[in-house]
Amino acid sequence: MSELRWNPILRQWVVTASHRQSRTYKPPEEHCPLCPTKEGGFPTEIPAPHYEIAVFDNKFPSFRNAPEEPVVAGTPLMPVRPSLGRCEVVLYTDDHMSSLSRMPVERIRDLVDVWADRYGDLCAEQGIEYVMIFENRGDAVGVTLHHPHGQIYAFPFIPPIPMAELKRSSEHLTSTGRCLLCDVLAEEMADGRRVVYANQHFAAVVPFHARWPYEVHIIAREHVPSIAALPAEQRWELALALSAVARAYDSLFGFDLPYVMVMHQAPTDPAYLPVSHFHIEFYPPNRTADKLKYLAGCELGAGVFINDSHPEEKAAELRACVSKLEGQSCGPADGGGEVGS
Amino acid sequence: MSELRWNPILRQWVVTASHRQSRTYKPPEEHCPLCPTKEGGFPTEIPAPHYEIAVFDNKFPSFRNAPEEPVVAGTPLMPVRPSLGRCEVVLYTDDHMSSLSRMPVERIRDLVDVWADRYGDLCAEQGIEYVMIFENRGDAVGVTLHHPHGQIYAFPFIPPIPMAELKRSSEHLTSTGRCLLCDVLAEEMADGRRVVYANQHFAAVVPFHARWPYEVHIIAREHVPSIAALPAEQRWELALALSAVARAYDSLFGFDLPYVMVMHQAPTDPAYLPVSHFHIEFYPPNRTADKLKYLAGCELGAGVFINDSHPEEKAAELRACVSKLEGQSCGPADGGGEVGS
Repeated sequence: MSELRWNPILRQWVVTASHRQSRTYKPPEEHCPLCPTKEGGFPTEIPAPHYEIAVFDNKFPSFRNAPEEPVVAGTPLMPVRPSLGRCEVVLYTDDHMSSLSRMPVERIRDLVDVWADRYGDLCAEQGIEYVMIFENRGDAVGVTLHHPHGQIYAFPFIPPIPMAELKRSSEHLTSTGRCLLCDVLAEEMADGRRVVYANQHFAAVVPFHARWPYEVHIIAREHVPSIAALPAEQRWELALALSAVARAYDSLFGFDLPYVMVMHQAPTDPAYLPVSHFHIEFYPPNRTADKLKYLAGCELGAGVFINDSHPEEKAAELRACVSKLEGQSCGPADGGGEVGS
Repeated sequence: MSELRWNPILRQWVVTASHRQSRTYKPPEEHCPLCPTKEGGFPTEIPAPHYEIAVFDNKFPSFRNAPEEPVVAGTPLMPVRPSLGRCEVVLYTDDHMSSLSRMPVERIRDLVDVWADRYGDLCAEQGIEYVMIFENRGDAVGVTLHHPHGQIYAFPFIPPIPMAELKRSSEHLTSTGRCLLCDVLAEEMADGRRVVYANQHFAAVVPFHARWPYEVHIIAREHVPSIAALPAEQRWELALALSAVARAYDSLFGFDLPYVMVMHQAPTDPAYLPVSHFHIEFYPPNRTADKLKYLAGCELGAGVFINDSHPEEKAAELRACVSKLEGQSCGPADGGGEVGS
């Protein structure tokens, strides 16, 4: 049902996972499989009337810890391998209508601990080379279940994007003796125009080279390789930074901003620790309240992103949202509804 | 208004083009700027009552031949450069409701000549390193003007995706003495299960490592570096292959299948000629008639594509469409309408 096929031209593995075609697709709210199981109601993934945070194996995984044999035979030029790995689902809350932006910071703080634990456990599993924590949010990025949740993929290889980052960081370390992201962040903080939010241990910036108009990176201000390596006080500050960015996003246009959120962390091989600098990247597809940025010929064909905006202006917009919300408690939702794709 | 910013982490240029935010967005058909100018009507881009094929500079270009100075100063770590280059629009026909699938093969044959001419001319311009011919089709890939047209971008650098392909092909040439795509195509033809269409000089396959369910590559069966290098009889066969794939796509679900089409050709540096093998890649976002494949955490964050289908099955579906249409003349549209995104 699932296998890895090698693209010898781009030197990348592609996951072929035909069973996912039948995965649960936008069920009505009363049939949400991620809500608690109500007394007398249909059984959901969570056989309990309440929960805080829950983690379980994805029912339609791209990677499994006991993968089946591939359906096709590969060749030396185009090999195939079983899709060994793990896919987990992380439920942030049992409240179907909540989100990172509406959760109390205390809950986000708990979520940081859960992420750190799962990252550590999955990294320790046999055959795993890279663990990626991420969240897809909103119809516009293809989300099929709207209950607030994220995912974790444990890969049997270091994927191309983190690998490119690690390779470049290694070259920079060799040539300068410093961490590349430490240098990039120092320039962003010195310039200041693209900084959206900062506390003692984390900064949120629209990168100088943003590919999406409202792209934001939350970056650890000291060199730390992973969420698991964060001491307790830094976990609080990470929760505050996540809350600030999530709330700014949802206040920007007055609706739940769709996004892809991806954590960049150290692979399991400790050789990469000096060049792994923990950060979280957010890619919202909106370029305005009612227009999306699509990936088309230039992005998909050439690999060149066209950003129809200046990062300095978009950072100013988001910074204004952060300022406006500052001091306001993170109360219950007063908006919601998602942008159509 | 437009500049290139360097991402030192992924080693990629990003185009920052703020003027494009105000580009023409899905005008009603009677105000299509790509239709001919009607007598007494508003002036379109084409000041004539009829045309066959037309090429002109994009009014909202990402690259210009006389670019303005960048709005931000770069740094040694994150440099900026003017977005030198060219962006052209290629109108396939003056018939607003036509498409590659509905055009007579003779018109596609003419289009091949126009593409070849523009490729040659743009490659000869000062400062150009790579010319990419492409087409974005359908709302689902973000098309803002629905008149049948493609685009050409002339880049001042070799973009990351062709560069990765060229680099890998060079390694393969060094280690085996052969062209990588020649070897890949030989395996596809020998296996046969993923071949959708073939004539003497071109084959269309769903690649072994397809990233999109209905991805198709039209590949020259002999090693030829570009569309401009094709002799006359091969241009006919290319037109036939394009027509067959376009018609199969539109008959698949009974509506105009959205896609991104990208030509892979030789960069301007002749050193790349031995490793440049002309082919055309189609990426349709549909995974079923009413469901799209979205790029989300795994694709955008990790660079790993999940294809929810087996290429062998999708190739069989498309091959059945090609067979069904075989012998039928390419008549006027009997369907149309685009899938919602």
